[in-house]
Amino acid sequence: MAEDKEKSAAAVDYRKLGKDVFEFFTHRTAYNSAAYLIPTLERMKQENPRLRLLDVGAGAGSVSATFAQIIGPEGHVVCTDLAPSVLPQAEAFAESLGVKNIEFKTADVHQLPFENDSFDVVHCHQLFGHIKDPVAALREMLRVTKPGGVVAAREGDRETEIIWPPLPGLKKWHEYVFDSKVAQVHGGTLTAGRQLLAWALEAGVKRNQIEVSYGTWLTSEEATKMVYARGISKVLNGPSRKNALQFGLTEEDIDEICRDTLAWADREDSTWLMLQTEIIVRK
Amino acid sequence: MAEDKEKSAAAVDYRKLGKDVFEFFTHRTAYNSAAYLIPTLERMKQENPRLRLLDVGAGAGSVSATFAQIIGPEGHVVCTDLAPSVLPQAEAFAESLGVKNIEFKTADVHQLPFENDSFDVVHCHQLFGHIKDPVAALREMLRVTKPGGVVAAREGDRETEIIWPPLPGLKKWHEYVFDSKVAQVHGGTLTAGRQLLAWALEAGVKRNQIEVSYGTWLTSEEATKMVYARGISKVLNGPSRKNALQFGLTEEDIDEICRDTLAWADREDSTWLMLQTEIIVRK
Repeated sequence: MAEDKEKSAAAVDYRKLGKDVFEFFTHRTAYNSAAYLIPTLERMKQENPRLRLLDVGAGAGSVSATFAQIIGPEGHVVCTDLAPSVLPQAEAFAESLGVKNIEFKTADVHQLPFENDSFDVVHCHQLFGHIKDPVAALREMLRVTKPGGVVAAREGDRETEIIWPPLPGLKKWHEYVFDSKVAQVHGGTLTAGRQLLAWALEAGVKRNQIEVSYGTWLTSEEATKMVYARGISKVLNGPSRKNALQFGLTEEDIDEICRDTLAWADREDSTWLMLQTEIIVRK
Repeated sequence: MAEDKEKSAAAVDYRKLGKDVFEFFTHRTAYNSAAYLIPTLERMKQENPRLRLLDVGAGAGSVSATFAQIIGPEGHVVCTDLAPSVLPQAEAFAESLGVKNIEFKTADVHQLPFENDSFDVVHCHQLFGHIKDPVAALREMLRVTKPGGVVAAREGDRETEIIWPPLPGLKKWHEYVFDSKVAQVHGGTLTAGRQLLAWALEAGVKRNQIEVSYGTWLTSEEATKMVYARGISKVLNGPSRKNALQFGLTEEDIDEICRDTLAWADREDSTWLMLQTEIIVRK
């Protein structure tokens, strides 16, 4: 499992790869990726300014760092990931924002290194679609949540990914990510979004403890599209090129993907979307 | 074209089919189907209480009637559909709400029977996915819009439809609606959502005149699910049964679809979703 994670994009050290890759890995913030949770955080903070928030599978840590800003200096965030190599990057990002109320720790969501009832908020983003047993993971996240606290998760339903216009390089990229050996190596499911509510119920939670909402990601906004396109191109052209060749893409495929992704982002009529499901579970 | 429309569900006279079917055809309101447009309407109404709104392809007219409530008694709504048979139902629905600032007219979106610059707001919901030339339709809608007015449209991307859990009858329903002869007879496209912005640009509008947003439909809310399930079952079991048999479903298929749709709605973990794109175009 740890090996799989090492193979993933999260293992890329974005700090060495310049501004485009840095932006790609850190453009996710609590504001664009966990907006559904912010009103709840604000409410909980009113009642208790010393909130403890655990972010699981946090990758580059940009969502965690913005959570730390939102819950304020009296609150505390623990940012975790299975891959130790990614945590120094998360730490550097938090430092770049001047965020101090945060710590970093290697952790497996199936066996979290924390006592029962340790956190007010336990959060993950795009995690359950990549692991083997989301129900066990949810149970473990609930275990370390204080009574009265919440577990929050947002999962894309990757089968609903839409790319318009369907330029040939983008179709290749979609097939590479979703239909090739890469998806098999990484495990998980492409339909996490639609199953999220069912998983929470299976983890033993009652329906009236769960708040469900739905959203989309990305948008057709020019700035977001360019961050995405430049990031993919730089990573695929650079550190991930060797992997991509091993997983069945040719040199020409990679060039076409990079070229079409940038051309796509530059068009006024282009869109890249995916359905997202969000749950907030009260313990 | 008019013939196709006559074959569609809109031609069902829901007034004869009881409460379940009535609710199915009228559960769409401006609040749940055009929420993206309401702030714009409120703002325009502040400036001009005598707004004129055209609703195109309005079917059972429940969205039109709630628009009439929102723009208020000094405003006026013209509710149109290609199928003359549906308009008495729309009229009856508006009457049931006590809405008086509304009129009803047969109209083809490709050739609207109105002068240039006649309306402040021209709206349609789930129309472009069912017609042959959405760009021409958009041009025609823009023609009858006053300078300074808006054209608003919301289109589902039907290829992203998600049904969970995937009960066998629901899979059959999905295939019947999307992959069978029905879809071919009705024409149109399953990917309207992702193309909506591109169509607007093709109709000659500049990118900075267009506000784009994205949403989902339906939800996992119990009440909505039941309205949907009871409506489908009653219609498919009743007036549309003959059509369904002609289009390749068997008696057993229909029974299974009705049974599984109701079972699906009754489950706590069930979800039915589709990506939606919304645009507001300023003329």
